Amino acid sequence: MNPRPSPLDNIRIVCVNTLYGGNIGSICRAMKNCGLSHLTLVNPDPDLDQIELRKMALKALPVYENRRECATLDEAVADCGAVAVTSGIDGFHREQARTPRDWAPELLDIAATGSPVALVFGAEDKGLCNDDLKRGTHWIRIPSDPEYSSLNLSQAVLICAHELFVANGSFTLQDERSPPATHAFRERMFDTWAETCLSTGFCKDDKLNHMMMGLRRIFSRGACTENDVKIMLGLARQCDWAAKHVPEPPTTPPSS
Amino acid sequence: MNPRPSPLDNIRIVCVNTLYGGNIGSICRAMKNCGLSHLTLVNPDPDLDQIELRKMALKALPVYENRRECATLDEAVADCGAVAVTSGIDGFHREQARTPRDWAPELLDIAATGSPVALVFGAEDKGLCNDDLKRGTHWIRIPSDPEYSSLNLSQAVLICAHELFVANGSFTLQDERSPPATHAFRERMFDTWAETCLSTGFCKDDKLNHMMMGLRRIFSRGACTENDVKIMLGLARQCDWAAKHVPEPPTTPPSS
Repeated sequence: MNPRPSPLDNIRIVCVNTLYGGNIGSICRAMKNCGLSHLTLVNPDPDLDQIELRKMALKALPVYENRRECATLDEAVADCGAVAVTSGIDGFHREQARTPRDWAPELLDIAATGSPVALVFGAEDKGLCNDDLKRGTHWIRIPSDPEYSSLNLSQAVLICAHELFVANGSFTLQDERSPPATHAFRERMFDTWAETCLSTGFCKDDKLNHMMMGLRRIFSRGACTENDVKIMLGLARQCDWAAKHVPEPPTTPPSS
Repeated sequence: MNPRPSPLDNIRIVCVNTLYGGNIGSICRAMKNCGLSHLTLVNPDPDLDQIELRKMALKALPVYENRRECATLDEAVADCGAVAVTSGIDGFHREQARTPRDWAPELLDIAATGSPVALVFGAEDKGLCNDDLKRGTHWIRIPSDPEYSSLNLSQAVLICAHELFVANGSFTLQDERSPPATHAFRERMFDTWAETCLSTGFCKDDKLNHMMMGLRRIFSRGACTENDVKIMLGLARQCDWAAKHVPEPPTTPPSS
């Protein structure tokens, strides 16, 4: 059974006048990392370095093998409902640009209607020219430091693809396997540590409350799991046992 | 006068056992793109390809030239208040991992105290080993497609650096230069277009309201600028003028 269609299946990465095979390879890998597979090359350099391309694409080489090649940008995006163009510099009406994160939800909405959505990237040396940019329905500016604002081509593709992948919401982190410790279990642990503080001579009765506040602080920076508490409870019990079996507990804490 | 210190100045990118000069160069560029400049290499390959490195670093070569080199990870991060470790695979306690976007605010908070914060990345072929991972205070998992989850090393650095750069809030988009059009100015434009719809014969009196709703819809997808309205008002006026100077306006709209 096929997985159900995703808006990401309607995203098309379009690279105009690309010069370096290594970049194309890196773009293929970045696309696969982000669940994208449709690559269109507009007028690429006829002598792309195929060895570099394969070295950088690795397992994502099929993205390159299944690419489309077109002579013009108009041909590459003719069927697209949105044409998102990228530029790393300011000027020429770029005040309408938004970040990839800003545009991602709208671009996915359009892709979800079944309409192809193009993300268009220019050549390594010059980016997109104004004649290409003016074809855009959405203008993208990737946040970068003004001291060196120009990203490598494949890095620019990655940022845009990553934002679409994240906004699509299909990625989830590995779940915490141990459930959170219950309040009662945490309190049993604190009781045992209090007992151990005294039995080891780590502190006297009159300082115990203060010391226990310090210990509680360590365990109140978020949910403790049952496994966390099991380890700390077992360790306290064992220390308490050991302290009660030495001939004479130390009267002052050993120096650290 | 020096710019005021930024938390980004306390972020350190630490690469363990790196094999390829091209990746180091790409990392330098990605760092500069995101306002970072401190690179530490732990036990890098002694024969890093320096030509590839320079080709990929371009204007970010000073990041490499000012790098620190260490024999061990412990040495590289000894003074750090947080050690964020990255891994692209699941298992070995990785259920505590969060995304770079999740951790960015907390890591910047720690960096803002003046304490160095390390982001640690493993070798291209194996990533970080468990012995390195266990030294982490924060575990990072970059969202990626399970079909091909492993990112290129420099791409992984970019995603993490980009999240810190964006969370730091120092980047702002170029401002829209034209102010939003006022309500009264927009209404003048609609009045003129209504006049023009009739004078050109584009529609008759009884269809005018319906047609104007269509035109209004186009101009109600967000704020129109004063410049937008100036162009559309001028165009309407000129069409109206032209229509009133032809001998006989067309009775049906020309086909498109």
